[in-house]
Amino acid sequence: MKLVIANKAYSSWSLRPWILMRALGIPFDEDLIPLDTPEFRPRVDAYGAGRTVPILVDGDVTVWESLAIMDYLADRFPQKAVWPADIKARAFARTIAAEMHAGFRPLRSACPMNLRKRYAAKDRGQDVASDVARILHLWRQARERFGADAGGPFLFGAFTAADAMYAPVVARFQSYSIPVDPDIRAYMDAVLDHPAFSEWQDAGMKEAWIVEHDEVDEPQVGPFRG
Amino acid sequence: MKLVIANKAYSSWSLRPWILMRALGIPFDEDLIPLDTPEFRPRVDAYGAGRTVPILVDGDVTVWESLAIMDYLADRFPQKAVWPADIKARAFARTIAAEMHAGFRPLRSACPMNLRKRYAAKDRGQDVASDVARILHLWRQARERFGADAGGPFLFGAFTAADAMYAPVVARFQSYSIPVDPDIRAYMDAVLDHPAFSEWQDAGMKEAWIVEHDEVDEPQVGPFRG
Ligand SMILES: N[C@@H](CCC(=O)N[C@@H](CS)C(=O)NCC(=O)O)C(=O)O
Ligand SMILES: N[C@@H](CCC(=O)N[C@@H](CS)C(=O)NCC(=O)O)C(=O)O
Repeated sequence: MKLVIANKAYSSWSLRPWILMRALGIPFDEDLIPLDTPEFRPRVDAYGAGRTVPILVDGDVTVWESLAIMDYLADRFPQKAVWPADIKARAFARTIAAEMHAGFRPLRSACPMNLRKRYAAKDRGQDVASDVARILHLWRQARERFGADAGGPFLFGAFTAADAMYAPVVARFQSYSIPVDPDIRAYMDAVLDHPAFSEWQDAGMKEAWIVEHDEVDEPQVGPFRG
Repeated sequence: MKLVIANKAYSSWSLRPWILMRALGIPFDEDLIPLDTPEFRPRVDAYGAGRTVPILVDGDVTVWESLAIMDYLADRFPQKAVWPADIKARAFARTIAAEMHAGFRPLRSACPMNLRKRYAAKDRGQDVASDVARILHLWRQARERFGADAGGPFLFGAFTAADAMYAPVVARFQSYSIPVDPDIRAYMDAVLDHPAFSEWQDAGMKEAWIVEHDEVDEPQVGPFRG
């Protein structure tokens, strides 16, 4: 299998299926196409898939859209727990994954993912605050209703596609110093400490590309973590 | 089961799970909450679900987000063909459903669904044209690669969740007189002629509510169809 992605420092959508596949131990090659370069459009178009990355290529099957890639992996590897096994937990996991897939645009545009930077907390307006409050509510619901009993620090206990969908949001909350309570901090640390996240982030740190429109003009308060 | 929806004349997201459930013969009650009225927010919030409709309530399971509702129905009714049975067709169906779930914003904002109106064809700008071209490409790919051999006039042969996700787009192409080739016209007619679509549309015609921001200030060229 081949996963087509963009820069690890910036590409939030690429991180989603990548971290899921790594976390579940599904082997794959990667093809990294740098954003905002002349080669991006022709190399993406050559896959005959979507207009964006990520793209998964599995023999003669080509899947794009992060959520559809995850559902394809669930079909293709039924022995891997891509989604929670319990039908109610799975319904909740898919619901919050779908809400992420289509939503939270104010947060996404005000706080682009940037795994090299940490900015100070500040008021980013009512729409961003409302997205943040909504996400905290969804994470807490998942943990309280399903994760806490299942064992494991992730939304539904073990790492699933729901955590993969929200991994770039965890990274944003970290980068933009969003204030959180201890239960949420514990969840964020579980994601940030996951070996698959560290591997992706380390690679992002080493990339030379700078994507200007994802660089926010604010003072930094330290490295991404620590 | 109860499906919470908004006005049939205008609510494109509500139409998606509603037409799927009717087309597959899954019985349900409905709770219609009119958009842009003072009762909308409190009645939606009372479900403790998402900020939007549709919402599906099945005993103690509450699912929101149109795509997650469809996946829940697939889990809950494995004997109903919510998605195509073949893994490759299913991957393609889920991909184009996910692309719809998150995308096509220029088309969605320039051409709000309005099942009572038919406007003249006109240039609606490059972004809308690009969305239309992309959708035509996806429909044609589905028909040529999967639907044509499967028997049945829908994207994957029989009516599936992919058709349900695109039913409001078919309605927009109809309302805004988007020029299409005969193969696409045949697909659109199959959707518009589906008894479940007619039932929804007839109910929309009878509603008294007018949602001003979904009413486009352009001359009409006749009724929705005919
Ligand atoms: N809904 C898509 C979004 C993918 C997306 O927007 N990817 C970005 C990179 S993070 C991209 O390819 N941008 C390039 C472009 O839009 O031209 C998904 O879930 O995969
Ligand atoms: N991503 C959501 C979108 C739902 C949506 O936007 N629904 C509209 C009605 S068509 C709504 O509830 N609007 C009211 C609001 O946003 O306050 C889904 O797939 O269900």
